[in-house]
Amino acid sequence: MLAVAILAAGRGTRMKSDLPKVLHDLGGRSLVERVLDSLAAVRPDRQLVIVGYGGDRVQKALSAIAGVEFVEQREQLGTGHAVQQIIPHLDGFAGDVLVLNGDVPLLRPETLKNLLDTHRSAGNAATLLTAHLPEPKGYGRVFCDGSNRVTQIVEDRDCTAAQKQNRRINAGVYCFRWADLAEALPKLTADNDQQEYYLTDVVSMMSPVMAVDVDDYQEILGINDRRQLSAAYDILQTRVKNAWMMQGVTLIDPASITIDDTVTLGSDVVIEPQCHLRGKTAIGAGSHIGPGSLIENSTLGDRVTVLYSVVSDSTVQADTRIGPYAHLRGQVQVGNGCRIGNFVELKKSTLGDRTNVAHLSYLGDATLGTKVNIGAGTITANYDGVKKHPTVIGDRTKTGSNSVLVAPVTVGADVTIAAGSVITEDLPDDCLAIARSRQVVKPGWRLTVVSDVAAP
Amino acid sequence: MLAVAILAAGRGTRMKSDLPKVLHDLGGRSLVERVLDSLAAVRPDRQLVIVGYGGDRVQKALSAIAGVEFVEQREQLGTGHAVQQIIPHLDGFAGDVLVLNGDVPLLRPETLKNLLDTHRSAGNAATLLTAHLPEPKGYGRVFCDGSNRVTQIVEDRDCTAAQKQNRRINAGVYCFRWADLAEALPKLTADNDQQEYYLTDVVSMMSPVMAVDVDDYQEILGINDRRQLSAAYDILQTRVKNAWMMQGVTLIDPASITIDDTVTLGSDVVIEPQCHLRGKTAIGAGSHIGPGSLIENSTLGDRVTVLYSVVSDSTVQADTRIGPYAHLRGQVQVGNGCRIGNFVELKKSTLGDRTNVAHLSYLGDATLGTKVNIGAGTITANYDGVKKHPTVIGDRTKTGSNSVLVAPVTVGADVTIAAGSVITEDLPDDCLAIARSRQVVKPGWRLTVVSDVAAP
Amino acid sequence: MLAVAILAAGRGTRMKSDLPKVLHDLGGRSLVERVLDSLAAVRPDRQLVIVGYGGDRVQKALSAIAGVEFVEQREQLGTGHAVQQIIPHLDGFAGDVLVLNGDVPLLRPETLKNLLDTHRSAGNAATLLTAHLPEPKGYGRVFCDGSNRVTQIVEDRDCTAAQKQNRRINAGVYCFRWADLAEALPKLTADNDQQEYYLTDVVSMMSPVMAVDVDDYQEILGINDRRQLSAAYDILQTRVKNAWMMQGVTLIDPASITIDDTVTLGSDVVIEPQCHLRGKTAIGAGSHIGPGSLIENSTLGDRVTVLYSVVSDSTVQADTRIGPYAHLRGQVQVGNGCRIGNFVELKKSTLGDRTNVAHLSYLGDATLGTKVNIGAGTITANYDGVKKHPTVIGDRTKTGSNSVLVAPVTVGADVTIAAGSVITEDLPDDCLAIARSRQVVKPGWRLTVVSDVAAP
Repeated sequence: MLAVAILAAGRGTRMKSDLPKVLHDLGGRSLVERVLDSLAAVRPDRQLVIVGYGGDRVQKALSAIAGVEFVEQREQLGTGHAVQQIIPHLDGFAGDVLVLNGDVPLLRPETLKNLLDTHRSAGNAATLLTAHLPEPKGYGRVFCDGSNRVTQIVEDRDCTAAQKQNRRINAGVYCFRWADLAEALPKLTADNDQQEYYLTDVVSMMSPVMAVDVDDYQEILGINDRRQLSAAYDILQTRVKNAWMMQGVTLIDPASITIDDTVTLGSDVVIEPQCHLRGKTAIGAGSHIGPGSLIENSTLGDRVTVLYSVVSDSTVQADTRIGPYAHLRGQVQVGNGCRIGNFVELKKSTLGDRTNVAHLSYLGDATLGTKVNIGAGTITANYDGVKKHPTVIGDRTKTGSNSVLVAPVTVGADVTIAAGSVITEDLPDDCLAIARSRQVVKPGWRLTVVSDVAAP
Repeated sequence: MLAVAILAAGRGTRMKSDLPKVLHDLGGRSLVERVLDSLAAVRPDRQLVIVGYGGDRVQKALSAIAGVEFVEQREQLGTGHAVQQIIPHLDGFAGDVLVLNGDVPLLRPETLKNLLDTHRSAGNAATLLTAHLPEPKGYGRVFCDGSNRVTQIVEDRDCTAAQKQNRRINAGVYCFRWADLAEALPKLTADNDQQEYYLTDVVSMMSPVMAVDVDDYQEILGINDRRQLSAAYDILQTRVKNAWMMQGVTLIDPASITIDDTVTLGSDVVIEPQCHLRGKTAIGAGSHIGPGSLIENSTLGDRVTVLYSVVSDSTVQADTRIGPYAHLRGQVQVGNGCRIGNFVELKKSTLGDRTNVAHLSYLGDATLGTKVNIGAGTITANYDGVKKHPTVIGDRTKTGSNSVLVAPVTVGADVTIAAGSVITEDLPDDCLAIARSRQVVKPGWRLTVVSDVAAP
Repeated sequence: MLAVAILAAGRGTRMKSDLPKVLHDLGGRSLVERVLDSLAAVRPDRQLVIVGYGGDRVQKALSAIAGVEFVEQREQLGTGHAVQQIIPHLDGFAGDVLVLNGDVPLLRPETLKNLLDTHRSAGNAATLLTAHLPEPKGYGRVFCDGSNRVTQIVEDRDCTAAQKQNRRINAGVYCFRWADLAEALPKLTADNDQQEYYLTDVVSMMSPVMAVDVDDYQEILGINDRRQLSAAYDILQTRVKNAWMMQGVTLIDPASITIDDTVTLGSDVVIEPQCHLRGKTAIGAGSHIGPGSLIENSTLGDRVTVLYSVVSDSTVQADTRIGPYAHLRGQVQVGNGCRIGNFVELKKSTLGDRTNVAHLSYLGDATLGTKVNIGAGTITANYDGVKKHPTVIGDRTKTGSNSVLVAPVTVGADVTIAAGSVITEDLPDDCLAIARSRQVVKPGWRLTVVSDVAAP
């Protein structure tokens, strides 16, 4: 059996924020969600999140995650005090307890798996994660014998000059045999300068205690302020982007690109500078994205090109070209080989294959057939001020420039709508619809009479 | 009494520019303006800017800054020669003279304050600013006794191998007792390889002379070419961005963001990648900016969101959403809880609370009430080819898609304007206005007859 | 006589791509094209590209380059085997052979010139390019006597600890006297762990052999995966951008900018962050580009400003302002002092001097005179569903907001077109054209009757 205790009670004063520290976002998920995600390989039976400052918000934020229990720490009297709060919740529990910090979000699942496996196979009372830091200042140093048995942990401020040379530090991540921890926790005292109960102090009451090194010291970095939050994001992004490059994706100026770790990319995808791929996004092989595009929670097929555009919550089939300056949002579905051009907004609409909306149009709540050509400036008037109405347009129909389709309206197939027409009634297949005035010319006219021209 | 002499006469040949070097822009202000700004803590009584190449342009550029006097240096014969030019201007002056370079723009006010305070409290004849450079090559080395009294200054080219190990360099920033400097300056000779008069040479004529270290060596870096200009901008930006992060602002990919040092940000503001905040801009708490937005000289309230948009010279109240691809310019005022959507331009217009302009519209010189809904493609024709006219729209009015309001025109409250209508006359409250033709359908029509469709 | 052999037969498995490795793009040209470009200073008489994996695609990609011969390597049995394939093609050839790798794209022409000159003036049998790498691991080490005569080349895996300290490595770029090489090549054996024929082995059969150092070790870096491709792009970009800065161009945040090496920039050009200048683009003096703009294969005059826009295959004269959010494509020609504003698309159109298209317009296949003012929302309906037609607009003409010009159509000079008009017939000079309905007002009207309003 494995229980996990996550310390998530602190305010995080240096974040200078109303939001509890563990709820700050790091690449699409909160710090504490990332800590929970890092448990993927150890499959805990119990997950206890110790909450304090803003505990309600933390509980609410994690309410959708199954199997999370909350333990309240009313006062924040140190890490040892925090873990003491779980004692009543683990009454009768037999097994191990993994203690994690809610503000250390970069641990890899395999790191925790390795810690737990070592702990169990060695039969340790406690096993702690250590890292070799290039700049260990501020961290407690861990001293071991030749078998990685911990002989001493010395806080930075108590280190001799010689001890400070040791760069192996205590990462604050522990695996305990619960029976031993439950016995040790009540013995902690706050007999120190800070008058806090330190979890580190239980280690000296236990035996055997072993240290396990993390492969990459960056995994154990904690978040205490926004600069560290930014640094952690950079580490995370470098991981994700390097992994995709090694999988056959070309990133042009990768430093300028962000890719959530929930995104999937096909082979030979090219991502141009300043693109941001977020949430549950998947991009098909050979697609070319950017520069300057934001794709969120969307699925793009193979060989799609997107230039300076925003695509949210939508699906785009293969060989479609989007942008520049297009905006798809709200469950848009675009077929194969379509062209969505500049200054076009699609909202909650479906487009059949080889349909073009090339310029200056708004289609909302519309369903278009195949090979439709939407003229520049065409707008679906889908809102009557009270609710929204659908527009349906048949295959091969062409709308004229600056035409308006007043919904609800159904336009048949093979229809041509003349430029400048406002269509208020349904149209049958194979017709021309026209709703405009004849042209009148007044010769010898002087400019100042009317004011029809939009100014710069 | 304190006088300041700023050396600003050089052309800056390596800038490869027509513009005098000190007028090049660094984050919204010229180099020499930044040098003047660095005087904030020492409050000089006199500010003398020594001009030469492009002196007229320098004078013009600084004409709005009170208390700046210009001293002409007709020929550029070295730093000592430059400072000699101030002698006639400081006739009878009693006090100290701070000598600064117009191309060293990163000095912090507290650095100069510290230099001046040390100079005065120690009763020095001269006090010079020194820095410990990681790569001191090219700079004169400063040698001091144990009390920071300068014993020797040796130019890089004259240094022995041992002397080159000294990384403490002369920053070229001096504080002089004027009486001593005025006596020493005429004694300078140009008896050297370059045949220039070096200010450094006066130091050996004075006593006592002391050195004061700058905390951060980056402050003393000078600008001689565009790479150094770019490096200085990077230093400045890192300062500004780190400071905001420590104040509780989240910057996602800070390297891609630029924030002028004239900008203020509320707590829990999030700035996404590739945003640029410039000039007198203030952003309220909890606002979320970007990616890809430019905000200039504008004030945004709390919880405003801006996505891929340009906002200049405008004010936006709380809870308003802007973008993507919106453009506000020229004294726009937007109320609370408004929505400015894609492909919308607002120019010199005022919008009441909860008003929406969601798609493909241009409003210029317009005043809108509250809860107005501007339909997609609505345009205010505010320009008659000669001058601009106002449009007024009452509360809760709704304009239809692709409608035009020909200014000057006043539309009442609770009006509905039908799609495709051109409104040329004022409308009373609570009416429907319609200006369009009825729809005509020609069945069995073949496409090739008309050419109404805008092409891809 | 000089022949060049370029090794371009490998698949490049670590690229994880269908595309042959040497065809991957690096800043607008393929790796192998860049290798060919690096020959500019040595002017070879013969250029042999040794192809294997995807040989057809490589041949096709290089088909436009004069004087390239292709040599097939059916199996890939090592670098020595590759060069053996050229023997029948150089039957009777007298001179030198330069051997290059198709995946080493950063060599400067002067580096190869220097290699060849040294080779010839020293009368070497072989001359190889060497570099001093900060991290030489994995590369063969080159040992020389005091005269740069190569005494030994030891592969990394065969190096003693002492030999590994030597950071001078074999760059894999060779100049051979063909007579000597032709004699040595048949003697190669595959008697090694990899069972490959190594070109390096011919060196020990020749004398004299000399090493020539490359000035900048980054030139010899090869591309084996996408991370290396990205690193090479970064090196290339740094070269280009540093060079432009030294030429008097201001780059604000240069790391965020990309500039192809085919671009030319005038003096005092300012490039803001996140701009991308590509292909055959030239930008005139004093122009200000960006942020966030893409300029491809276009020529911009002096003092042009471009803000958040895309300009492709177009020409823009001096003092014209473009953007934000404008899109010029397909052979657009814009005159002097024009204004192309937001949400404007120009395609294959010509604009005379001082003409404005300030908002929300699409002009395709149009020819405009001087001082034309295109009202907001004006569209040229240039496509009849079958083919495209021209629009001609005379000097000083003004189109009203939301007007449509149905092509083919010719509008005279000094014409005013009323807002909302659809122009289907030609207009003479100096007239007012109007094609719209009169305004009708229905008082006391309730909103729910019509649905004309486009929804958020």
